[in-house]
Amino acid sequence: MTGAPIFERMALIGIGLIGSSIAQAARQRGLVKEIAISTRSPATLQRAEELGLGDVYELDAAVAVEGADLVILCVPVGANESVAKWISPALKKGAVLTDVGSTKGSVVEQVGPHVPEGVHFIPGHPIAGTEHSGPDAGFPTLFDHRWCILTPTPDVDPDALQKLTAFWQGCGSDVDQMEPKHHDLVLAIVSHLPHLIAYNIVGTADDLETVTKSQVIKYSASGFRDFTRLAASDPTMWRDVCLNNKDAILEMLARFSEDLSALQRAIRWGDGDKLFDMFTRTRGIRSSIIEAGQETDAPDFGRHTASETVSSSD
Amino acid sequence: MTGAPIFERMALIGIGLIGSSIAQAARQRGLVKEIAISTRSPATLQRAEELGLGDVYELDAAVAVEGADLVILCVPVGANESVAKWISPALKKGAVLTDVGSTKGSVVEQVGPHVPEGVHFIPGHPIAGTEHSGPDAGFPTLFDHRWCILTPTPDVDPDALQKLTAFWQGCGSDVDQMEPKHHDLVLAIVSHLPHLIAYNIVGTADDLETVTKSQVIKYSASGFRDFTRLAASDPTMWRDVCLNNKDAILEMLARFSEDLSALQRAIRWGDGDKLFDMFTRTRGIRSSIIEAGQETDAPDFGRHTASETVSSSD
Repeated sequence: MTGAPIFERMALIGIGLIGSSIAQAARQRGLVKEIAISTRSPATLQRAEELGLGDVYELDAAVAVEGADLVILCVPVGANESVAKWISPALKKGAVLTDVGSTKGSVVEQVGPHVPEGVHFIPGHPIAGTEHSGPDAGFPTLFDHRWCILTPTPDVDPDALQKLTAFWQGCGSDVDQMEPKHHDLVLAIVSHLPHLIAYNIVGTADDLETVTKSQVIKYSASGFRDFTRLAASDPTMWRDVCLNNKDAILEMLARFSEDLSALQRAIRWGDGDKLFDMFTRTRGIRSSIIEAGQETDAPDFGRHTASETVSSSD
Repeated sequence: MTGAPIFERMALIGIGLIGSSIAQAARQRGLVKEIAISTRSPATLQRAEELGLGDVYELDAAVAVEGADLVILCVPVGANESVAKWISPALKKGAVLTDVGSTKGSVVEQVGPHVPEGVHFIPGHPIAGTEHSGPDAGFPTLFDHRWCILTPTPDVDPDALQKLTAFWQGCGSDVDQMEPKHHDLVLAIVSHLPHLIAYNIVGTADDLETVTKSQVIKYSASGFRDFTRLAASDPTMWRDVCLNNKDAILEMLARFSEDLSALQRAIRWGDGDKLFDMFTRTRGIRSSIIEAGQETDAPDFGRHTASETVSSSD
């Protein structure tokens, strides 16, 4: 499904899981004519070149963005400000500048002031990813049937917004618009809190003296392993998310802890009816997510078939 | 891979996900000659018969166990005591009596006193399951490459133990032995705590006033949906687990909450180094679980392919 390219030259600053997937989706679907890739690590840049992800490879981000009419920052959110300062003088007038960060209020604050006049800055966040990191982890269908949230200011240029929307739709995404602050609140509950809880429970298990790590590993199929996927995500990305969406995350953590205390109390007092009610109300949400096309309806995430394949090659 | 049957007549009391999977595995692999199925719900019993899961169907558990040399209690752990009382007078001398419950200390206490002399009671727990419940949810490969923990007493009859071990191995499981109390501690961290945390976070999200339920559903692919699988598990089963492994669960909950407070503090004070360390140490556990053959190594639990299949039929 290739049409006319939406942008002439796309510059990707950062080429991890997301950058690499954007490059592959854009190339496969003919969304851009030329792809310039920049990252600060020479080894990663070389790997991107070996994978053939772009047309031009530059260590200097300012050189990479020259002449680009679409610039996408694909770095951990904590690096956005310094990258924005660096590339700012080299940005082409009329270019669309966006990012893929999991926090949007901080990006507006940190990148906004460095955007030159005539450049259209539209923060963005594709709701997609896996637990793997780096350019090798990318794949062209990552964004298919996933939401991409854009957080434009009210005075955004309509053409620029329309082109960026078409770009993400071309990558397979459904596109939504939201206020940056509301985005950060929504993501705090659907993404940031789940990751923190997952990191935390895996840490708790790792610290036990009474149950060995090898027992945790052996018997993990009884529930624990579901958490280890999120807890295997990129630590730099998640450190930056915590530092840049502090208020919303602390709010969600406080609510979660309060609810957990109530659950703990019901267990201590043996309140079976309350426990049954708590465990019943949560069932419906999963079926709604499956109906919305955001989850597979196969039991066990469909991993049963996958693990059989693995085992047969043992 | 069928050999000589290990048992002549197996009676399954309860025919949910686990009972149904045992029936199918035992039949497919020729582990028993005859299968008697009993459950207190006439509708469920009829469904089991429609699915052809057994040879004999009885509403009266005491009738079902007559002449059985293997009796497996496949009911929620809270129902074990009353079933044990019920079937006790009808159990055949020399029969092996076991169960599949997620708590073992309580089963020893509640079932043990009702076991007649000459019947070999060996509590058991296959570490396998999905988020689906009922006889239709069962499948014959559920136990393949999964652990089954038996908690025999020191004076167990060696022949009975050997036969039950061979039965579970025939179902595809690796078999381990453990003290009941230690089993309950191990399961509290690898299974019970993860389920409670999952139920809790889904409940927290459901209660928010600032983020709508439809937003939680739409953007769930960013992490939240991983938790909804465990939170869709059978509420009766999990109520009973909480009531019957209270001490170990409260101990794990307390540790988890303590660790969560430390994480919360690091976020509040913007301690990036501490956050980075916390998020780094947890990565190794997942690779160990994959190496141990207890998890698929496909990104996103391998569900990407599954969801593509779903979407293409939209």
